[in-house]
Order: sequence, then structure tokens, then C-alpha cells
Amino acid sequence: MKSPISFVIFVIFLFFLVSSAHPGMKRQHYPCKNLVFYFHDVIYNGKNANNATAAIVGAPEWGNLTILADKFHFGNIAVFDDPITLDNNFHSTPVGRAQGMYMYDTKNTFTAWLAFSFVFNSTEHKGTINFIGADPVLVKSRDISVVGGTGDFFMHRGIATIMTDSYEGDVYFRLRVDIKFYECW
Amino acid sequence: MKSPISFVIFVIFLFFLVSSAHPGMKRQHYPCKNLVFYFHDVIYNGKNANNATAAIVGAPEWGNLTILADKFHFGNIAVFDDPITLDNNFHSTPVGRAQGMYMYDTKNTFTAWLAFSFVFNSTEHKGTINFIGADPVLVKSRDISVVGGTGDFFMHRGIATIMTDSYEGDVYFRLRVDIKFYECW
Amino acid sequence: MKSPISFVIFVIFLFFLVSSAHPGMKRQHYPCKNLVFYFHDVIYNGKNANNATAAIVGAPEWGNLTILADKFHFGNIAVFDDPITLDNNFHSTPVGRAQGMYMYDTKNTFTAWLAFSFVFNSTEHKGTINFIGADPVLVKSRDISVVGGTGDFFMHRGIATIMTDSYEGDVYFRLRVDIKFYECW
Repeated sequence: MKSPISFVIFVIFLFFLVSSAHPGMKRQHYPCKNLVFYFHDVIYNGKNANNATAAIVGAPEWGNLTILADKFHFGNIAVFDDPITLDNNFHSTPVGRAQGMYMYDTKNTFTAWLAFSFVFNSTEHKGTINFIGADPVLVKSRDISVVGGTGDFFMHRGIATIMTDSYEGDVYFRLRVDIKFYECW
Repeated sequence: MKSPISFVIFVIFLFFLVSSAHPGMKRQHYPCKNLVFYFHDVIYNGKNANNATAAIVGAPEWGNLTILADKFHFGNIAVFDDPITLDNNFHSTPVGRAQGMYMYDTKNTFTAWLAFSFVFNSTEHKGTINFIGADPVLVKSRDISVVGGTGDFFMHRGIATIMTDSYEGDVYFRLRVDIKFYECW
Repeated sequence: MKSPISFVIFVIFLFFLVSSAHPGMKRQHYPCKNLVFYFHDVIYNGKNANNATAAIVGAPEWGNLTILADKFHFGNIAVFDDPITLDNNFHSTPVGRAQGMYMYDTKNTFTAWLAFSFVFNSTEHKGTINFIGADPVLVKSRDISVVGGTGDFFMHRGIATIMTDSYEGDVYFRLRVDIKFYECW
């Protein structure tokens, strides 16, 4: 009788030895938390100082600071402080701010590169979520990295799926962000 | 006799099955390493070329490169190479350099966005620590993400708590950084 | 007979209890995936618009946008969209794009700070890899952080070792990037 039980113990032991040696194999591929937000960007164009939430602060030699540059805006850097809303209405009460920058980084198509934070300070959410990643603007759905968080999002990591929900010329765009956390702490 | 032992094995098995399926539940919320530093930023203003450790390199249309812009510096980007010290004395021997950038990103209050590295090359510490995050300057204590590290800080992650320790007008400020690593490798 | 088996179970139980409480102790220090690429940067200098893959978009007060600034380029920000190749030949078919920015951040030596993504969309690789970190250009081999990934590189983290493989004046440089993932999911 000893032998079958020892065998079971041995198998369990092997199982955990293997799973310990390869912790990567245990990671879960479904989100431990999922949040959807919209944010709204109004670029300063020299005439909309009151409404603007973003400003061009870097431009290539052929550009300037009140209009996005030729060549697919290649080289433009914008700094932004955009309202975050729960639905796609620009006039909804903001639940937080999206703060950081984007830059256009290709001269033969529209692609951007993003580095920003979501900043929350409400009864619903307190803390920040930090993002970076490539944003091929013309692709319907694109993924960037959630590289960290603080407060309610302490140490969180994940993927944010971004979709352009609407835009008006070069002045306004609205992004839908579907945040899927895979490390929640 | 077989039955109770089998039951114990079964319970242990279940326990580890559950803990494997939810690795997030095992994470520890106390730091595995804790370091405190100060760093010192002297912004170039056209007259202090010798002492300056930072320079404005991006500005909105209404700004320039020798003075932080109106509207709470919204749109200013500064690049810096600041000395890191162990105490709050600007003249202490630096133990490393804080290198990267900050940008002011709100037009109705002071908030910044940070992306930088601590670079160490001493007997005490060798390697780098990489940070990004939102910095609401007027809040006493604010948290940003430690998103990675190299050398002594290989693959580390954590939270850095930043406090403004001192400032003089728009030219000098000193930050206290309390780095708490929660993933140490 | 019960007693020795119970003891074995108890020891196994303790072992996993300890390893659960200190997940950091199980991390592996050898890569779960390793990739080597080259990327090629041609900086716009006012005359090479067709070939340029990067443009200066930020400069300090003493600089401009067609030539890297004095004082070791301190304060220059460049945005880039560089071809990635499998070997060190600029004319090889690109397998992806390196997109993002670098900035020079020291005024008494050459150091840069990097924030960019590798973007792949081929049969070989689909997805992105996101990097940030300090780049002391004159050091032969320097490490930056891989802070996240998407697609084939979903949630990956690691270290990228960068070497300057070649350069020509201030206009062209080629980097060799050895990406070692330590978290593969």
C-alpha cells in the first residue's frame, strides 16, 4: 500500500517542481480586471485656446506649432491633458484625466507613439495607470502596453486596446480605450 | 488508512491547483528593497549655462526656450541630467545621475509627466532604474511607476514616491525619491 | 507507516508554502526567448529628405532642427521610424520598424535616452515590443528595459542589450539589439 501513495506524492512533487521552474507557464491569459474609457483630444490651432486640451510642442524643420506638419505629421510632438469619460460624449462629466504626450513618427503613413497616464481621483477610482506603445492610427484596433500603476492600480500590468471612436479634421479626436489588466496584485 | 492520507493529498493538490490558477493572489505588498535618494534640477535660463543641469527643448506656440511658459508651463518639455545625492545637499558628492525628461501637461494647474532613468556606476550600485508616471507637482507626495531596471536592478519593478524637498522660483528644484521595489528577481 | 508518509506530505506542504510566500525567489535568470536585430537611423540634415528616417524635433536654445546641437547634442530630441533588419546590411529587406524617439541628455559626454517600439507585421513576427532606458552611447554594450509587448510578445518583459554597430558622422548610425525576454507568458 505504501507504494501507490508514494507514487502519488512523487507525481505531485514533480508537478510542482516543474511548475516552479517554469513560472511563465502558469500565467493566466484572461484579464483580472477590465475597464473601458473614452478620452477626448482638442489640439491647439492658434484660435481655440479656451477649448484646446493639447498643444504641439515639437515639430520638424518643415513644421510649426499651430498646425500639424506635412508628411503625415512626421516629427510632431503634442502634450495633452485630455478629459476621460465613461461614454463617448465629450460633454459628459470627466472621471479623470489622460496626461502625457504623443508624437507622429512615420513620414509615409499615419502612425503615432504614445506615452501617458490616466489620472483618477474620484470615489470610483484613485490612482494612476501608465501606458506606452506604438499607435498605428489607421488600424482599427491597436494594442499598447500598460506598464505600471499606482493607488487602486498598484503595480498592475496589462494591455490597452485603442480604437479611434471619432475625429474631426486635425483638431479633434476621441479614443476608446479598453484596458485589460493581466497582473492585478 | 489509505483514505485519510489520500484526502490530505487531494486537499494539498487542490490548494496548489487554485494558487497556480490565480498567481496574482500570492503577490507580496511589502517592498523587497527600499532606497531613498535626492536629485537636483537647475533649469537653463539663458544666464546659467555652467550650472544648468536641464534645458527647455520644447515649448508651445506662446513659449520660448529660456523661460517656462505661461499657463502653468503647459507644453514645456525639459531634458535633464541631474546629480543624485544621498542627502538633501546640492553640494554632496553625487552617487549617480537622473537622466531623461519632464513635461508640463496641464494649463490650469502645475502637473508634470516624467520619463527618466537613474544611472549608477559606483561600488555601491551599478545599473539603471527606469521610471515613468504622472507628477501632480503641488501634491505633497505622489507615486510613479518603476517599470524596469538593469544591472543590480535587473528586471526590478516597483513604486517611487516623489516629494518636492525644496525649490527656488522656476530655476531650481530638489526631489526626494523613495523607491520601493516589489519585484526584485 | 502513516507517520513517515505524513511527514513527507508535511515537508512538501512547507516547501510550497515557502515558495508561494516568496514568489521572487523562483524567478529564472535565463531568457525564455532571445532575438537579435539591427536597426538603422538616418538623421534629417536639411539635404537628405528622401533617405532620412529620423528628424530633430526638439533643440535647446543654442540649437536648431537641421544639425545636432553643441555641448554633446544636449537637449536634442529626435523622432524616428527606422528599418529593422536581421543582419547589419542597411539594404536588407526590413522585417519591421523601430519607432519612437531618442534624446541627448548630457552636456559633457554623449548619452541618450530612448523610448520606442519595435513593430512587426510579418509571417515571422506579429506584434510590438516596447523599450525605455538610458543609453550611454560611448559604452560598448548597454542595457535598457523591455517593459511590455503585444501580439506575439503579449505581456513580455526583459532586457535589451544595445551596441553601436556602425556610424557615419552625425547622420547615420546602426544599432545591434540583443533582446532577452525573461517573462514570456
